[in-house]
Amino acid sequence: MEIYLDNSATTRVYDEVTKKMCLLMTEDFGNPSSMHHKGVVAEKYVREAAQEIAKTLKAQEKEILFTSGGTESDNLAIIGGAFSRHRSGKHLITTKVEHPAVLNSMKYLEDQGFEVTYLGVGADGRISLDELRAALRDDTILVSIMAVNNEIGARQPVEEAAKIIKEKNKEILFHVDAVQGYGKYRFTPGKSGIDLMSVSGHKIHGPKGIGFLYIKDGVRLIPISYGGGQQKGLRSGTLNVPGIAGLGLAASMIYKNFDENIDRLYDLKADFIRNLTDRLEDVKINGIPGEAYKDADREELGKIVRETAPHIISVSVAGVRAEVLLHALEDKEIYVSSGSACASNHPQFSGTLMAIGLDKKLLDSTLRISMCEFSTKEEMDKTVEAFTEIVPMLRRFSRK
Amino acid sequence: MEIYLDNSATTRVYDEVTKKMCLLMTEDFGNPSSMHHKGVVAEKYVREAAQEIAKTLKAQEKEILFTSGGTESDNLAIIGGAFSRHRSGKHLITTKVEHPAVLNSMKYLEDQGFEVTYLGVGADGRISLDELRAALRDDTILVSIMAVNNEIGARQPVEEAAKIIKEKNKEILFHVDAVQGYGKYRFTPGKSGIDLMSVSGHKIHGPKGIGFLYIKDGVRLIPISYGGGQQKGLRSGTLNVPGIAGLGLAASMIYKNFDENIDRLYDLKADFIRNLTDRLEDVKINGIPGEAYKDADREELGKIVRETAPHIISVSVAGVRAEVLLHALEDKEIYVSSGSACASNHPQFSGTLMAIGLDKKLLDSTLRISMCEFSTKEEMDKTVEAFTEIVPMLRRFSRK
Repeated sequence: MEIYLDNSATTRVYDEVTKKMCLLMTEDFGNPSSMHHKGVVAEKYVREAAQEIAKTLKAQEKEILFTSGGTESDNLAIIGGAFSRHRSGKHLITTKVEHPAVLNSMKYLEDQGFEVTYLGVGADGRISLDELRAALRDDTILVSIMAVNNEIGARQPVEEAAKIIKEKNKEILFHVDAVQGYGKYRFTPGKSGIDLMSVSGHKIHGPKGIGFLYIKDGVRLIPISYGGGQQKGLRSGTLNVPGIAGLGLAASMIYKNFDENIDRLYDLKADFIRNLTDRLEDVKINGIPGEAYKDADREELGKIVRETAPHIISVSVAGVRAEVLLHALEDKEIYVSSGSACASNHPQFSGTLMAIGLDKKLLDSTLRISMCEFSTKEEMDKTVEAFTEIVPMLRRFSRK
Repeated sequence: MEIYLDNSATTRVYDEVTKKMCLLMTEDFGNPSSMHHKGVVAEKYVREAAQEIAKTLKAQEKEILFTSGGTESDNLAIIGGAFSRHRSGKHLITTKVEHPAVLNSMKYLEDQGFEVTYLGVGADGRISLDELRAALRDDTILVSIMAVNNEIGARQPVEEAAKIIKEKNKEILFHVDAVQGYGKYRFTPGKSGIDLMSVSGHKIHGPKGIGFLYIKDGVRLIPISYGGGQQKGLRSGTLNVPGIAGLGLAASMIYKNFDENIDRLYDLKADFIRNLTDRLEDVKINGIPGEAYKDADREELGKIVRETAPHIISVSVAGVRAEVLLHALEDKEIYVSSGSACASNHPQFSGTLMAIGLDKKLLDSTLRISMCEFSTKEEMDKTVEAFTEIVPMLRRFSRK
């Protein structure tokens, strides 16, 4: 039995989504730019998808822009946002624990003469709102804060941040990278003061190669690519209709039975942490402040984990190299990640783990376990079982 | 019976491609950046696709970069190419009949201080090689010429152009937008002196939202988006594995039975032109020099059309508005395009039709008929039949 616990890297596509996409590849395969019936049908799928997504955000259809994924959404929001406002100032704010798509867009802007403030985080991976308040300047034009950290599952206080930013200056653009947050939390960006929000399809059982950027009505961005003028000139290129329709369906499905699914994930998370830390010594769960989970009973732990994202568990296992543990788990068909998959091609250590002040010895001993709505108690129990079998053995080897 | 003759806008996805993509969405759905088995499997699909594509170009696997489609490939080649060479000069050359993805990338570069020469074309839609030679300067750093025009099917002499460019200066980057040419002609960019070549999946019965850029080994580009460093840092973002695998399969399928398929398309094209112009007065076929088709017999016409792309027929019908004719054909379930779909959202007239010096009265009376390997003699005959029924009727109305 395969146990797939790398859902923050990518997810299995819903069967319903796959089925819809097949139809749109072989039957209703038109180009929405075509004037004839097949184009009109294709355009209808695109509009329906935008409506379905807008509904999950209490937003308007016209506020949804389709992109090739989270990376493009982040790039367009940050680079397109900064260049649209550069006459008002050149100061940007983000955090030290953002995804590389945000951090490297910021680095590009630094090369272009912008100045970026990087907010630090506490042991729980969260920014300080006071620090954000102090960082805001008269020439600040854009702030980008992720909703949920992709490596440890820390939930940033984006709604509170929005208030502080907009109190300072309504004209400051606020972008939220919600790639790991959408489908795990409810967002109402329009109400919350979020101007721009990036989402990726393949993290919510939708297709790869598609994502969207929520752009609050009235917010102007400068395009970052050029072509046939599709999507009001902001994002040229033939619309990926199967991908878009698949994303729309996945978005509406992920918010069905939402409270129930999320609650169940939290229970699985609390149980997993309780069982693993009870049964294995020298195991640290990251992103939970003060290591409060250590002495908490199941009920207390249930409350504590609800301060973090429901699906991500970051585990540091002293004395064991992450890569070795990952492959030992793989032998048992349990698939997890070391750090985040997005950075796993790179030999350098995770920025997030360093930012939360993790003991250097543990940087290379940390795994990410990420669940989805299909994860089961049985799978999680088997994973605990596997840890308790493998870890003592590996420790014996490495301590020899 | 639906007769789909808008294959230059988009194509039906091969059943085999759809099937493969379904498998990769629901079974082998991993992220190639993941270190475990599911990531390794996913990466294998990506490598296989790159190999399949490279094979069609006699290129190397590492020379294939995956993008979100033709528009992104064009943007990356032109903008990324220009910025990688800007220390050697700021002069670029392209043609007046390029796709908006090329023309608007060039316009962006003009705003950034680059200078662009736009080559004109003859009545056949082809550039003059002498004009190209004269346009090359010591500070020319990049030339971009399309392989096949998307509106009239003119075939540009890109191999001859490459020779002239490289004779002038080997360091000049030569980009070919082959979105309408790949799968209709054989390309060996490495041998031919083509450094960069853009291709889109959905024009060759592959998926939408995916394309590739051939980048000759050793050619350096500046990325145009920033993120997790996938694809050697040149194109970040989780790889769209189902799209990539679908594209790889489509690429290898489109080059199977290639000569036979293309030959058949040319016969269909010659037949259609002969039948239509024999049976309808005041009909002009664009992109064929000197209107040579008028007096040619079937055999001669067969030779003439072989100077143009096999799949595109541009027809101007005097006295009839293209949009009206398009919708009248649509009533008979025959789907064609007015101008090119990529520009059809825009009310302005086609740049290509103006560039070939088409009579102003015909600009708004021109349809594009574009076939694919599934197009049949029966479909083309029915289309001629429909024209001969509809056009006289419409002319009677419009002349009243």
